[in-house]
Amino acid sequence: MVKPSPACREAILDIKPYVPGKPIEEVQRELGIKDVIKLASNENPLGPSPDAVMAIREAAEKIYLYPDGNCYYLKQALAAKLDVGEDQLIVGNGTDEILKLLGEAFVDPGDEVVVADPTFSEYEFAAQVMGGRVMKVPCRDFRLDLEAMAGAVSPRTRLIFVCNPNNPTGTIVSRDELDSFLDRVPPRILVVLDEAYYEYVTSPEYPDSLAYVRGGRPNVIVLRTFSKIYGLAGLRVGYGIAHPEIINSLNRVREPFNVNSLAQIAARAALDDEAHVGKSKEVNNEGKEFLYEQFRALGLKYVPTESNFIFVDIGRDSREVFKKMLAKGVIVRTGDIFGFTTFLRITIGTRRQNQRFIDVLREVLSEVP
Amino acid sequence: MVKPSPACREAILDIKPYVPGKPIEEVQRELGIKDVIKLASNENPLGPSPDAVMAIREAAEKIYLYPDGNCYYLKQALAAKLDVGEDQLIVGNGTDEILKLLGEAFVDPGDEVVVADPTFSEYEFAAQVMGGRVMKVPCRDFRLDLEAMAGAVSPRTRLIFVCNPNNPTGTIVSRDELDSFLDRVPPRILVVLDEAYYEYVTSPEYPDSLAYVRGGRPNVIVLRTFSKIYGLAGLRVGYGIAHPEIINSLNRVREPFNVNSLAQIAARAALDDEAHVGKSKEVNNEGKEFLYEQFRALGLKYVPTESNFIFVDIGRDSREVFKKMLAKGVIVRTGDIFGFTTFLRITIGTRRQNQRFIDVLREVLSEVP
Repeated sequence: MVKPSPACREAILDIKPYVPGKPIEEVQRELGIKDVIKLASNENPLGPSPDAVMAIREAAEKIYLYPDGNCYYLKQALAAKLDVGEDQLIVGNGTDEILKLLGEAFVDPGDEVVVADPTFSEYEFAAQVMGGRVMKVPCRDFRLDLEAMAGAVSPRTRLIFVCNPNNPTGTIVSRDELDSFLDRVPPRILVVLDEAYYEYVTSPEYPDSLAYVRGGRPNVIVLRTFSKIYGLAGLRVGYGIAHPEIINSLNRVREPFNVNSLAQIAARAALDDEAHVGKSKEVNNEGKEFLYEQFRALGLKYVPTESNFIFVDIGRDSREVFKKMLAKGVIVRTGDIFGFTTFLRITIGTRRQNQRFIDVLREVLSEVP
Repeated sequence: MVKPSPACREAILDIKPYVPGKPIEEVQRELGIKDVIKLASNENPLGPSPDAVMAIREAAEKIYLYPDGNCYYLKQALAAKLDVGEDQLIVGNGTDEILKLLGEAFVDPGDEVVVADPTFSEYEFAAQVMGGRVMKVPCRDFRLDLEAMAGAVSPRTRLIFVCNPNNPTGTIVSRDELDSFLDRVPPRILVVLDEAYYEYVTSPEYPDSLAYVRGGRPNVIVLRTFSKIYGLAGLRVGYGIAHPEIINSLNRVREPFNVNSLAQIAARAALDDEAHVGKSKEVNNEGKEFLYEQFRALGLKYVPTESNFIFVDIGRDSREVFKKMLAKGVIVRTGDIFGFTTFLRITIGTRRQNQRFIDVLREVLSEVP
């Protein structure tokens, strides 16, 4: 192959360039459907906190000013809420950006990064951008196999990504499992605990990961987000909690104005709206039970979840089911991108959305043998 | 030095970690001053387009949905306005992000990047993150020395950054100069034409850089922004125009949801508000003439500008003048960060702001011998 001129780095040739898709509005127009529900991206079906919306409307005229590059007020609020220091916090343009910063700060070409399989795909991306090698460790019964992940460590390992709850399976690793894992992992390796779905967890076995950071452990970073239960996915704001040395390393590679000003303002407002978070949990728990019941009635196996989505085996080609559901106005995520061709990943919606999803699923399953 | 554990990459040890500053609101409170004007960040003193503000307020309730990862509607509008293809466009979380993507896509450790001195500091940052070497070529009479920059090319050169108008000097390179420069630069090297201040230029000598892209030239990328004349600095949205192969390379290293949804919506609205852009130019041109006149009256040498800021020699330690002006509620940028210790970089403000700035400057200059 003749390289285009100027040629990009060889290290990134394996990364598939983003294939632009059309916005939902365009798909709707083309298919001639009106009422579309999207249960594909694990967004909060109740929307954002009304306080966040109000804060945005009030601040809208100030957008001509650069954002605060230090997220001063947001960090102050997070530090108070989480009982950590402001120097133990970093805020990103979504957790996505922090994942990339982790690659940029810690991964040299040829370094290794350990991830589960299946798990969130951005971990692999962060490593690939920096020419890192990704070691994938299969899940066991849809759960992260922390023993095998610790066993995959080599002298070149720099990062281990623990998605907890795991996307797309919704399962967690327990406090005891994580404790033993951290005992085994050499302290020179940074363990990334991605807790994007933290607020949805109901299991008493779930680890209190911030205790590691508060206790001064230098090789753990906890990631959380405003994109899920806080309902601010469109604004892009995620954060990391770690030892100040780790935060310092990440700040070296961070752009000075990475988090937009409306995101900072909305996140502060959303953080205080505990009623909205409480209601969102309630709706999620109810929806979970409803969907479990319906899946059982349909004879479908699902993975019990600790998050706001369910990984369900529909026993048929998920791409085909996806297309037929889309034509009926219900958008879901197919399992093939995670290597599970007969699975769907369904965001738990409102009662009405869940009912509509089940109705459409039942129809489509009867059409697809 | 004992390395912290886990240690960051050696390549980034030379990057100074961001030193968190306090927001203006905090400084104001501490100094006990009320009416602060900020002429430090080259923001639009007229604020954002009112259409953009309205668009944000209308869309605020939709922020629970992920942004369109392809900036579909914004690219459509930009493509139509600029007469380029949508596949010739990339949108970033500010131009800052696109600069970093350029490093990630094209710079391997040890590769070289050519920049002017002084110029915008983020070019150096983008190279450093990837372990690139930065070759600085001094300006001549505050103007980019394109001949010397072409002469600095080596077999390892991958990127050349041409800031036009140049930040902090406000000068431009002409069409003829750029043509000869591009003739000399080997086609395997990508030339980055950063036109953040494009809309403010009044000189007829200014190059029509998009003509290179429209003509199919593969080794040029033009960068523009919504942070300056469009008044959306807080929302972070910049864009690049280049050959589809270059866009493709950048998309390999781009996070899928890099541009927040309110930024996309506000940028589209601002793009159509030509009245606001026109008025902003007018205010800038008037302010420029006023400040020139005042500087002459004060006996200060300044660099004639093609942008919305002026680089002026105050003949005194700029840090000291900065502090005294800050105490009187006027924030400017000191030249020391660009290597010019007796210079200030002043954003051209509204008539009232310019008058207040001059009054305070006159006072302070009389206090500092």
